[in-house]
Amino acid sequence: MSTITPVILCGGAGTRLWPLSRQSYPKQFSPLAGADSLFQASLTRLTGDGFAAPVVVTADQFRFIAVQQMHALGITPQAVLIEPTGRDTGPAVLAAALHLAQSDPDALMLVAPSDHVIPDAALFAQTVQAAVPAAQGGQIVAFGITPDRAETGYGYLELGGPLQDGAGIAPLIGFVEKPDAARAAAMLAEGRYLWNAGLFLFTVKDILVAYALHAPDMVEAVQTAVDDARHDLGFLRLAPDAWDRAPAISIDYAVMEQADNLSVAPYAGRWSDLGDWAAVWRETENDGLALSGPAYAIDCADTLLRSENDGQVIMGIGLQDIIAVAMPDAVLIAHKSRAQDVKQAVALLKAQGAGQADTFPKDHRPWGWFESLTIGDRFQVKRIVVHAGGALSLQSHHHRAEHWIVVQGTARVTCDGNVTLLTENESVYIPLGATHRLENPGKVPVVLIEAQTGSYLGEDDIIRYEDIYARD
Amino acid sequence: MSTITPVILCGGAGTRLWPLSRQSYPKQFSPLAGADSLFQASLTRLTGDGFAAPVVVTADQFRFIAVQQMHALGITPQAVLIEPTGRDTGPAVLAAALHLAQSDPDALMLVAPSDHVIPDAALFAQTVQAAVPAAQGGQIVAFGITPDRAETGYGYLELGGPLQDGAGIAPLIGFVEKPDAARAAAMLAEGRYLWNAGLFLFTVKDILVAYALHAPDMVEAVQTAVDDARHDLGFLRLAPDAWDRAPAISIDYAVMEQADNLSVAPYAGRWSDLGDWAAVWRETENDGLALSGPAYAIDCADTLLRSENDGQVIMGIGLQDIIAVAMPDAVLIAHKSRAQDVKQAVALLKAQGAGQADTFPKDHRPWGWFESLTIGDRFQVKRIVVHAGGALSLQSHHHRAEHWIVVQGTARVTCDGNVTLLTENESVYIPLGATHRLENPGKVPVVLIEAQTGSYLGEDDIIRYEDIYARD
Repeated sequence: MSTITPVILCGGAGTRLWPLSRQSYPKQFSPLAGADSLFQASLTRLTGDGFAAPVVVTADQFRFIAVQQMHALGITPQAVLIEPTGRDTGPAVLAAALHLAQSDPDALMLVAPSDHVIPDAALFAQTVQAAVPAAQGGQIVAFGITPDRAETGYGYLELGGPLQDGAGIAPLIGFVEKPDAARAAAMLAEGRYLWNAGLFLFTVKDILVAYALHAPDMVEAVQTAVDDARHDLGFLRLAPDAWDRAPAISIDYAVMEQADNLSVAPYAGRWSDLGDWAAVWRETENDGLALSGPAYAIDCADTLLRSENDGQVIMGIGLQDIIAVAMPDAVLIAHKSRAQDVKQAVALLKAQGAGQADTFPKDHRPWGWFESLTIGDRFQVKRIVVHAGGALSLQSHHHRAEHWIVVQGTARVTCDGNVTLLTENESVYIPLGATHRLENPGKVPVVLIEAQTGSYLGEDDIIRYEDIYARD
Repeated sequence: MSTITPVILCGGAGTRLWPLSRQSYPKQFSPLAGADSLFQASLTRLTGDGFAAPVVVTADQFRFIAVQQMHALGITPQAVLIEPTGRDTGPAVLAAALHLAQSDPDALMLVAPSDHVIPDAALFAQTVQAAVPAAQGGQIVAFGITPDRAETGYGYLELGGPLQDGAGIAPLIGFVEKPDAARAAAMLAEGRYLWNAGLFLFTVKDILVAYALHAPDMVEAVQTAVDDARHDLGFLRLAPDAWDRAPAISIDYAVMEQADNLSVAPYAGRWSDLGDWAAVWRETENDGLALSGPAYAIDCADTLLRSENDGQVIMGIGLQDIIAVAMPDAVLIAHKSRAQDVKQAVALLKAQGAGQADTFPKDHRPWGWFESLTIGDRFQVKRIVVHAGGALSLQSHHHRAEHWIVVQGTARVTCDGNVTLLTENESVYIPLGATHRLENPGKVPVVLIEAQTGSYLGEDDIIRYEDIYARD
């Protein structure tokens, strides 16, 4: 069995699964189908026999979420590359290849999105291993999903002839863009088109040759971004100036559509990109109903009802082909046929200045997370959770005082130079202007209630003096 | 102009407008159509020239809500009668009549539900005044609404012949129960049937005669309940043992359907009982859409989208004939044709043990209200608002300690005999077992954040030593 390095791309921030997926915490980090997040499920699928530790490519604002979710699974990545800005998959895959080339140009890399569902991990691993000889023989292998419907939402991979049951690697003739309904139906009938899942296997040296041939400009920019990358708390920050010279383009456009050493590995197992709520319904429905959380349906058919919060019930009555997703700060109700238009809804909310378009009430930080429980005139109450070993920056505020009450765990509090240990049921007052820091020196999370009072309570009223996470 | 005493019934707790209407805070106390609650709109409509101070009949658990909402309008009732248990409208109207008989048997009383919408208050008052001579002449006058559709959800009043435009009082021939669709259509075509709005005008002495004739058993029970009523902080608590002997029956069944001195006063203005969400949609829609709160609709038709919380957006896409009501703890989505089945949904939730079936996160008390902001393992955070002059009972807890932080106003805190004044940004710790009290001695509401810690955090861990509201 050959060892393959998974390259997992998790820098995207789609909005078609709003309100669950938002720019501040996109869908790959949420448990959309199962107990783990999609990113975690992807990692788990690509761990074990035949797989080396993964290379993860993500965006600056998701770096701590990604690390924390890997940590929860006990997975230590080979590297976490930080894209200074989103430039689509072309530069991301190239950066990973250039990084791997430093240690092993013959390494096999499997490029995988982090937000897809592939329930049969064993069959998938087997399919990947079966493609290794082709990749080692110089082929760029794309994995193609056997279609079971005339889907207009995906691109297609074209084979020379109809796919036989149990067929192995075949030459890839061409790519087909997202088709219209008639074309999709015709392709389904012809039987020689597979869905393009964005999953690719190749060796580092072969893909670098392909980039050099088909996207030489990108190579110069990304090579510099990798060479000048800054090591920062275990992250590899690609150099922003060089990176920004790389075009924003997918690997499909930049390389695949130009290359002539292409193969397809057919995958007959179940797969979904969970691209919209209709796809989530399709993947999770049982007898037509997809219920999640405290959700109840009376006489509903072909309907998805999700509550993303244990304390919020959702009740459907007499619904047909409805998607409803409830969160404490935002509720979506759409006809299933309009699932693609959720994007448009998010744009509308953004135009209205509604924070729910982008942001969750729960804000993830390197040290843990916080959420606002209530905001009033001149006061705000937050719940703050600090991971074991986490520490907020040493900071002060111009416009607010804070009361902290520890309700779980043990906190170390620094206030104007005095350090005290606070345990459950103890509290401390941080006067306006005081230099303070909150740390969790223990082994269990600290849960703290913070009541702020003052004339201005924005997150930007902060002066940072020291920060173990090297934030400004 | 004659002076009429409005008798406003607000003891009911309907569930067909769940999640907005729940047993703990039913629809009449919510602002369903307009800025004031339905109860407040009813009071306002029955205030001014021609109306005496109202008599309000309500249930024990709503007494402070009713008083507070009257107080907000500057209305002082003649009396607030507390029904020990709900016995429908028959005993409630009788109790009000017996109470009024003590001061003036000739008084005119207008019985009015508290949860209906009658936008044209002037036309309504004029219609009521026009019915006074008939009532003074010994008639029991029912107000009948000119129907504009074949409604199956209401009872009907039957006239001797088709109603003429601008017609006045006419003899009432009979009552028709809620009809089926065919019968409703036939009655609409015939033009001599009006909706029974549950609005009645009569003199105290005439209605007492009617009760004595047609419901003598009820008179004995209710007379005793009124005679033995206990005056309690401005409320008149009907005596529970006697009251419970009265049958649970509507005034329509108990008296009206037997009496022969009946008249109808036609009312041609707009009216709705807001009996279900379809009715709320009908009353509040504009171009087919009924939007309330931060609600957004993309390509929706004949749809109601309500958010009952400023911090919660609701977004509809491509919906037709959908009712959606969002609250932070419960979301309803129903086909409009199924609005009547919300009752069934509430029963289902109740059977599942979901607190949302009956109870709001916000809990109203005589001194103000509180809501739980977050509940965790061994801790809970509440926001507590104490009205000016309000005082919680002197109490202690076996299983929890409390931290209080004042974020608005000034609180007087008693803790084991020590009294301190706490103002904004000050906090106090109430140890487990300490006898304590919270009061608002000031002129503005006190807003307090309470963090509780302990092994058991239920509302029933309370020992009350003194209570200005005479609660146990």
